[in-house]
Amino acid sequence: MIPQNALPLDDRGLLLGDGLFETMLALNGALLHPAAHLDRMAAGCAVLGLPFDRDEAERCVREAAPAAGRFAVRLTLTAGSGGRGLDRPAAPLPRLFAAAAPSTPPAAPASAIVAATRRNEGSPASRLKTLSYLDNVLARAEAKAAGADEAVMLNNRGEIACAGAANLFWIEDGRLFTPRLDCGVLAGITRARVMALEAVEEVAVGIEALDRAEAVFLTNSLIGVRPLSRLGDRVFAPNLQVERFATVC
Amino acid sequence: MIPQNALPLDDRGLLLGDGLFETMLALNGALLHPAAHLDRMAAGCAVLGLPFDRDEAERCVREAAPAAGRFAVRLTLTAGSGGRGLDRPAAPLPRLFAAAAPSTPPAAPASAIVAATRRNEGSPASRLKTLSYLDNVLARAEAKAAGADEAVMLNNRGEIACAGAANLFWIEDGRLFTPRLDCGVLAGITRARVMALEAVEEVAVGIEALDRAEAVFLTNSLIGVRPLSRLGDRVFAPNLQVERFATVC
Repeated sequence: MIPQNALPLDDRGLLLGDGLFETMLALNGALLHPAAHLDRMAAGCAVLGLPFDRDEAERCVREAAPAAGRFAVRLTLTAGSGGRGLDRPAAPLPRLFAAAAPSTPPAAPASAIVAATRRNEGSPASRLKTLSYLDNVLARAEAKAAGADEAVMLNNRGEIACAGAANLFWIEDGRLFTPRLDCGVLAGITRARVMALEAVEEVAVGIEALDRAEAVFLTNSLIGVRPLSRLGDRVFAPNLQVERFATVC
Repeated sequence: MIPQNALPLDDRGLLLGDGLFETMLALNGALLHPAAHLDRMAAGCAVLGLPFDRDEAERCVREAAPAAGRFAVRLTLTAGSGGRGLDRPAAPLPRLFAAAAPSTPPAAPASAIVAATRRNEGSPASRLKTLSYLDNVLARAEAKAAGADEAVMLNNRGEIACAGAANLFWIEDGRLFTPRLDCGVLAGITRARVMALEAVEEVAVGIEALDRAEAVFLTNSLIGVRPLSRLGDRVFAPNLQVERFATVC
């Protein structure tokens, strides 16, 4: 744990975005799918070459979850201090901390635009929830500047990847689709839960696929499933097939 | 300035890599090209939509530069606290801090490999020195794992972009080349100084261009100009044309 709610200024998470995070929902003190989130952080640490103390991470998030109410609990792991410039020390000592923020479920479908900022499919980090999240911050800022809630992000090949803070699904002729992980996509916990409920085709396709879609929806651990009401000029009518997923969280 | 050499845990630089940095050389208390570094940070803040207090930034780096010796002074700007998830608060209040570390000039040419991790040419952040630097950390880790000093990074189109912590130049038939900024390249201060000394062609080309090169060299504000002795299996002989740049810093 981090003493005094403050981080040393030589921490690599701060200086270089060298680390990972997870955001999970806590309902009246009970975390939703903590094992799946901790598994994903462990897998991310393996990719980044960082040690992971799973027990300590679990203790962190459990202590951060308030006893009553609906909260987003964010668990952060940094690569710790040291090394010189880009190079990590020989034996990095990660830091872990968690914090809770009140979270209200979205009251309405989301509006979205297609962002100019792209996902970096050519980096392993594009499949992880890393502390280097500026591309997603920039994509979301594009959405807000256009008066929209979310941004659909393409990768550099022009393939649909994800939203700023969500995975993306769409329905065409009643069939479900979602981008393949190698498009630069996080293996979302809610994404996996939707895929366990119904057959979903993982594809690498351009934005024109959404022109043909009868419905598009976002998934993440805080919102569950949230339909798009609009993407740019295109308006989507409510869709019964999406509403079936309303309770996935 | 940051109190007590520690940063609040809700800082967006830490949580999301939302911020910028500059690293400059200090020789016996004198900073090299501070105006160029501060100009670049100001331009980066404009791209990211963050306010920039140039006087405060300058005060920070000047106070951090030790009176004697050769030091790397790093100036860090974070987007500050607040907002919810990806979204910044309406009026972000950036934090600035600086720190010095002893810096010795490289004693020998560098060995390099070509990294698998790519630069994200599709994000404005690829032209900035941001706190979301994990792709470069991963590329450098690939180099170290292969026993090399540095990594040459391509972008997702397969074009040469830069090294982990340096710009890249090469010489073919006596002509100088460097990647175009839109390949996902930082507008390096030393890169600009080399380009002011001699005609350099800015190009977007694949890695095969380096097969034809008689010399390759790295530039950054700490090393100045450093030749490559090796790239993968390819060995480069010392090159008089590169040695002419030895005093560029």
